[in-house]
Amino acid sequence: MSEVYADRRVRLRDRCAAAGSPAALVSRPANVRYLAGGSPPGAVLLLGPDEDVLLCPTPPGGDPVEGRLDELLRQAVLPPAGGDPAVAAVDLARKAGADALAVEEHHLTVARHRAMGSTAPQLRLADLGGAVEQLRIVKDEDEIACLRIAAEIADQALGELLESILVGRTERHLALELERRLVDHGADGAAFATSVGTGPNSGRGGHRPSDRRVEEGDFLSVCLGANYRGYRCEIGRTFVIGTTPADWQIELYELVFAAQRAGRESLVPGAGYRDVDRAARQILDGAGHGEAVPPLTGHGVGLEIDEDPQLAPSAMGKLDACVPVTVEPGVHLPGRGGVRIDDTLVVRQEADGGPELLTITTKELLAL
Amino acid sequence: MSEVYADRRVRLRDRCAAAGSPAALVSRPANVRYLAGGSPPGAVLLLGPDEDVLLCPTPPGGDPVEGRLDELLRQAVLPPAGGDPAVAAVDLARKAGADALAVEEHHLTVARHRAMGSTAPQLRLADLGGAVEQLRIVKDEDEIACLRIAAEIADQALGELLESILVGRTERHLALELERRLVDHGADGAAFATSVGTGPNSGRGGHRPSDRRVEEGDFLSVCLGANYRGYRCEIGRTFVIGTTPADWQIELYELVFAAQRAGRESLVPGAGYRDVDRAARQILDGAGHGEAVPPLTGHGVGLEIDEDPQLAPSAMGKLDACVPVTVEPGVHLPGRGGVRIDDTLVVRQEADGGPELLTITTKELLAL
Repeated sequence: MSEVYADRRVRLRDRCAAAGSPAALVSRPANVRYLAGGSPPGAVLLLGPDEDVLLCPTPPGGDPVEGRLDELLRQAVLPPAGGDPAVAAVDLARKAGADALAVEEHHLTVARHRAMGSTAPQLRLADLGGAVEQLRIVKDEDEIACLRIAAEIADQALGELLESILVGRTERHLALELERRLVDHGADGAAFATSVGTGPNSGRGGHRPSDRRVEEGDFLSVCLGANYRGYRCEIGRTFVIGTTPADWQIELYELVFAAQRAGRESLVPGAGYRDVDRAARQILDGAGHGEAVPPLTGHGVGLEIDEDPQLAPSAMGKLDACVPVTVEPGVHLPGRGGVRIDDTLVVRQEADGGPELLTITTKELLAL
Repeated sequence: MSEVYADRRVRLRDRCAAAGSPAALVSRPANVRYLAGGSPPGAVLLLGPDEDVLLCPTPPGGDPVEGRLDELLRQAVLPPAGGDPAVAAVDLARKAGADALAVEEHHLTVARHRAMGSTAPQLRLADLGGAVEQLRIVKDEDEIACLRIAAEIADQALGELLESILVGRTERHLALELERRLVDHGADGAAFATSVGTGPNSGRGGHRPSDRRVEEGDFLSVCLGANYRGYRCEIGRTFVIGTTPADWQIELYELVFAAQRAGRESLVPGAGYRDVDRAARQILDGAGHGEAVPPLTGHGVGLEIDEDPQLAPSAMGKLDACVPVTVEPGVHLPGRGGVRIDDTLVVRQEADGGPELLTITTKELLAL
């Protein structure tokens, strides 16, 4: 397993060397985790000219390191008063003879970057950009296995909720119960803040659960995900409460379902990010709901819940095999509510059976 | 209520003007919330030469703004494709005639700062530093009222847990149950990730709950807090499981209790931050536990759980009245466990009755 992390570091090191930097400093936590197997709070990873070192601050009273760190990696734990590990890393790179260090300018603050620069003025600080994020887009089968388990856990938690009585309960309580069930089924935690929307709140992306109670006739939309060994999936479903959905509810549901299916079916290696988005979006646009559609209809998932690629009208780039993404179009009608259907899938070659659906809870319109 | 935010902005504006910046851009979310009454995700606050504007991105499918925003404030919601609100703010400041803009260099990334700079090269970007954080240290009575309610909620959640059966339950489940109870009692959420440590994990600051189960004879240490209207408190207690604590447990508990009391009693206006730390620390040092004591023995709380001041050996500065802080010394003995006792208190003048204890759960050594 350790070779996985070492291999990833070699790939990053090759990119840096090609760009003229003999050393790189990775500070964004998900990137540190990807390359080192774990990311203790505040730790930074130095890919030095000679060796790779994880520099960790000692947390107050806590363990110096946690997680499944790569044992091939040297770990340096700084004393409590040891200051910023990024500054210590600059010093280490300089002593190892590096004349340039690529850093994550999209993560480091201006103040931190300046402190690093003044530690070793003769060391040139270059920009690593999103190099690690780019490496992270295509997943290996171990990563996909973690996502698959995360999706199973979310399916289980959601399935149990559907068997319970919902009318009269608040959005907030339903969300808390889902998060408890995720952990009961083996998640390390929720992948993101669980969203539960009822009635007029249904179908709103990222809706924060309120004290509104579930009522007969409501749409109920739920979006949740599990974090399993750092990997995060996402599932969203919309249900109707009571025995007979209204005509407008059935119509809206069928429309969003058709859009989501079109998005899913367009997930093939080589498809443009924007083409997947368009496949889903044009169905909603065509029905006059263009304004009500969110700016993204999907995104990558992995060590973060919102990774590259972005499936959006102006996104550049094409899908590869083994890229997990969400497909999550929705329509929200102000004052009335709406529908959102969200799956996590892995792009696969057609010869391998096409897109692999990780979140398998039914997408029929269930009346609960 | 709105005047509160407007007054805070006037104070900040005065500081900036004195430092030569006619305009300031606040991007750190807790700082935005402090000055605007709310901080929609990604929003930034421009204190311009003429008017104050909150610039918000439209979240995907979500509400453009949320929270209790100051109605005296102009709000600009950028279209979904509107890009970075900080860049839009720079443009706005330039058009309003500002020649310099103070920004939060300890929050903005290098990449973002560069994008802002290239939008308006003739506008000088200065550093606002921790000016807003400094304003936030001393709380007004409305803020303290929120903290008081947050502490009551945490006391209630903890009290209920103590009445339940603990032996055989995992740290993880106890933590989840505490977080559910916080919300049941009216919290907006947990103030931070609840920590539950049993046996050898007890007494470790920031311990992440594991699947270890509570056993007879264990120390059980719990640290939790409620978020009430954005304000976050903290309480930590250590208990012993079973009828008869061992001698070493009683001895260690009494020691940490004495250290924590010494810290609490030193909370007077004018006391140095380091003096409060020393009062607690020297008792633990004197008993030979110097190595086992975390680098901080307390810190400020408010809109963030870990704010200025830091109560640590090298901290500079003196306490003022109406500063809420934690006092949380602890000792963790590797392999055996330990004790941590943590209160949130507000510094008050002696004439006003001395430090106000917000977290009132007993600090007797309870055998559960």
